[in-house]
Amino acid sequence: MTRDSLEALVETPADSREAAEPRREPSPHAAALQSPPTTIDGRLVRYLIESLGNPPLRVSLWNGESIAPGEGDAMAQVHIANRASLLKLLADPEFQFGECFCDGTIQVEGDLVGLLESLIAGLSASASAARSPRSVIGRFRRRHGNSPADARDNIQRHYDLGNDFYRLWLDRGLSYTCAYFRAPDATLEQAQIDKMDHVCRKLRLRPDETVVEAGCGWGALALHMAAHYGVRVRAFNISREQVAHAREQACILGLQQRAEFIEDDYRNIGGRFDAFVSVGMLEHVGPEHFRNLGGVIDRVLEPNGRGLLHSIGHLKPDPLNAWIEKRIFPGAYPPSLREMLEVLEPWSFSVLDVENLRLHYALTLEHWLRRFDAASERVREMYDERFVRAWRLYLCGSQAAFRSGEMQLFQVLFARGRSNAVPWTRAYLYDDARG
Amino acid sequence: MTRDSLEALVETPADSREAAEPRREPSPHAAALQSPPTTIDGRLVRYLIESLGNPPLRVSLWNGESIAPGEGDAMAQVHIANRASLLKLLADPEFQFGECFCDGTIQVEGDLVGLLESLIAGLSASASAARSPRSVIGRFRRRHGNSPADARDNIQRHYDLGNDFYRLWLDRGLSYTCAYFRAPDATLEQAQIDKMDHVCRKLRLRPDETVVEAGCGWGALALHMAAHYGVRVRAFNISREQVAHAREQACILGLQQRAEFIEDDYRNIGGRFDAFVSVGMLEHVGPEHFRNLGGVIDRVLEPNGRGLLHSIGHLKPDPLNAWIEKRIFPGAYPPSLREMLEVLEPWSFSVLDVENLRLHYALTLEHWLRRFDAASERVREMYDERFVRAWRLYLCGSQAAFRSGEMQLFQVLFARGRSNAVPWTRAYLYDDARG
Repeated sequence: MTRDSLEALVETPADSREAAEPRREPSPHAAALQSPPTTIDGRLVRYLIESLGNPPLRVSLWNGESIAPGEGDAMAQVHIANRASLLKLLADPEFQFGECFCDGTIQVEGDLVGLLESLIAGLSASASAARSPRSVIGRFRRRHGNSPADARDNIQRHYDLGNDFYRLWLDRGLSYTCAYFRAPDATLEQAQIDKMDHVCRKLRLRPDETVVEAGCGWGALALHMAAHYGVRVRAFNISREQVAHAREQACILGLQQRAEFIEDDYRNIGGRFDAFVSVGMLEHVGPEHFRNLGGVIDRVLEPNGRGLLHSIGHLKPDPLNAWIEKRIFPGAYPPSLREMLEVLEPWSFSVLDVENLRLHYALTLEHWLRRFDAASERVREMYDERFVRAWRLYLCGSQAAFRSGEMQLFQVLFARGRSNAVPWTRAYLYDDARG
Repeated sequence: MTRDSLEALVETPADSREAAEPRREPSPHAAALQSPPTTIDGRLVRYLIESLGNPPLRVSLWNGESIAPGEGDAMAQVHIANRASLLKLLADPEFQFGECFCDGTIQVEGDLVGLLESLIAGLSASASAARSPRSVIGRFRRRHGNSPADARDNIQRHYDLGNDFYRLWLDRGLSYTCAYFRAPDATLEQAQIDKMDHVCRKLRLRPDETVVEAGCGWGALALHMAAHYGVRVRAFNISREQVAHAREQACILGLQQRAEFIEDDYRNIGGRFDAFVSVGMLEHVGPEHFRNLGGVIDRVLEPNGRGLLHSIGHLKPDPLNAWIEKRIFPGAYPPSLREMLEVLEPWSFSVLDVENLRLHYALTLEHWLRRFDAASERVREMYDERFVRAWRLYLCGSQAAFRSGEMQLFQVLFARGRSNAVPWTRAYLYDDARG
């Protein structure tokens, strides 16, 4: 069977993907695909596993047939419930693994994060091959844009799921970005505070300075800077729910005069500031807008100002995993570090310091997943089983991606190219007498 | 007078530039240019100074006429000895300032570094203007290539000037790259040792590991690593004089078994190593060879290996100052940080840490200049007055370039993209209990 015929067999319009459910009424087409397994199915599974670099897993099929091609112990058992799911997987593993996992036609027992780590490595290796299924299908996949209107739609689809949902598994401050664990056994609460301090110390904030934040989430960093560094912050965000929460917190903490939250696009930032900071927004900007973002920073930063960009990244230019982009983060694109510099280079900013916190994000996700699993009953009540599966896969897959090196996390500190108001060494960041 | 006619007036074949001397026999053409000054000369000086952003200087002409267009005190007095030099300056200030300074037809009294800092800022601003003299002339300027044969020629022209010359003004270990001053008042000797330790600590060298160094200068770093970190080093360099010195030092220190010096091009590095290090070579590689350099690193680095690139850089892609490229560093090109990443990205290396040591290079050059000035009589005996002027201008100009932000200094630490053998935080770099 050729790949083309496989693709024809499983081709379904996008809308039917949206509606896919595990136990719907069988159509005549589906009935044909539910026929009993043959040795061809077993061979297809073997082909699929080989093409993914033989990850250490065992596959069981709808008739109980079991295939374990790798040597040594399997880290996970994957159950495929019908032939249609197998064929979808063969045609487009990167996207369809997530789809089938969510509708329950693929179930995994054992170490899901470890399995995904192996699958990511396998997909990455097979993507280097010119005619891999991923490269064939990926070429025709429509991704979301990042115009101001698209951006609002993209952001609201993810961040406006409801603050109650995020409260179930984030830290108390609702920091939804990579934490900084001074030691791996730190708590998540402490590590999120340490991340904010690490950012503030890199920026060398001084009392009464002004800061602009692009993409402020639920306001944790802006409030931390205002409360602990004595600065005045204007924080921008296009997620209505997040801005409402941040304003409420500012009132509770009595920081309304020092932390102002504005529901607007980063493109509309005005004024002049001593520091620019953006933690976890660049992933949503889109590389075609990087130069413009740099222009915004150039417009608003004082001559001796400092800036920090904190973003998920890739090793080289490569779109986000297709399933994550479609189901979790529409419009997201994690840039390579070289691409990140396309924000700064046209405007002659000088990069002072880059730090890669990839393993810290893997650990952050481990904490989030543990809390999410503990709250999964509540999430199921709020949404449904499919939602729980999708978010569990996203949290496990992201942990696997950071652990495997598929994803990176860069903090880039910069100043104007001709400013000498820069620190002499970085020793001040590691001085334990904290400011 | 248009710029085109100015250029025609001063156009001389490249060979005659080589032979230019201050007091040669006047040709009929030269005699025409030696005519007494008129108010036109004064206006041209004013035009030139304005086009450079009005640096705080005073210009005196060959007839004693004095022009001081800026407000406030002049930081330097520039004497222009004849009209030919003025016209050359007008047509191509970036290149001709150095030429006239060396042949003595331009002399500077006062703060040469400060003056050059102002001129660099002015040239940089005028280069943004589409039809600046720099952009017109620069387009036709031939630069040196970086093929293996070109590279050998380029390197020998600079680094084989004679070890005795460099001994006069470098530190005892002959480190000819940016030092790391833990505090600004450290001595140069200590700061060069601290630079080597900073590099070794970033690479987390452990006893009996293997290291390859691309472009090892006089061997200071290779010998330091072998002596203090217990590693085995293979160090490559195409400068015969430097390799001879490094081998001699290895014998004196009894390190022949641990530090091997190879007179060969980086492209011919073979074997497998735990660490790759290159301090001050990338500037000589040429951006068209960056991908290939990354391929060499990919070929020789162990799966959990670490690498460090230390290089002069620019804020954005821009050739080296034309006079420095022609007279001091043929074939050199300081890349932007984004361009540096073109070495690493195609091979999926993960950048762990970038540090910008620009102000440390300005201070290193301040130390070198002080020593060079103290030894200038000896240099004049070894070479001639023109050589002393050229090197003094190069050291002052480089100091000005780092101080003004025209030049940057990047240390880029990296590992393979999927290696988790990376440090948890960078605190270990700032732990005072040194390894």
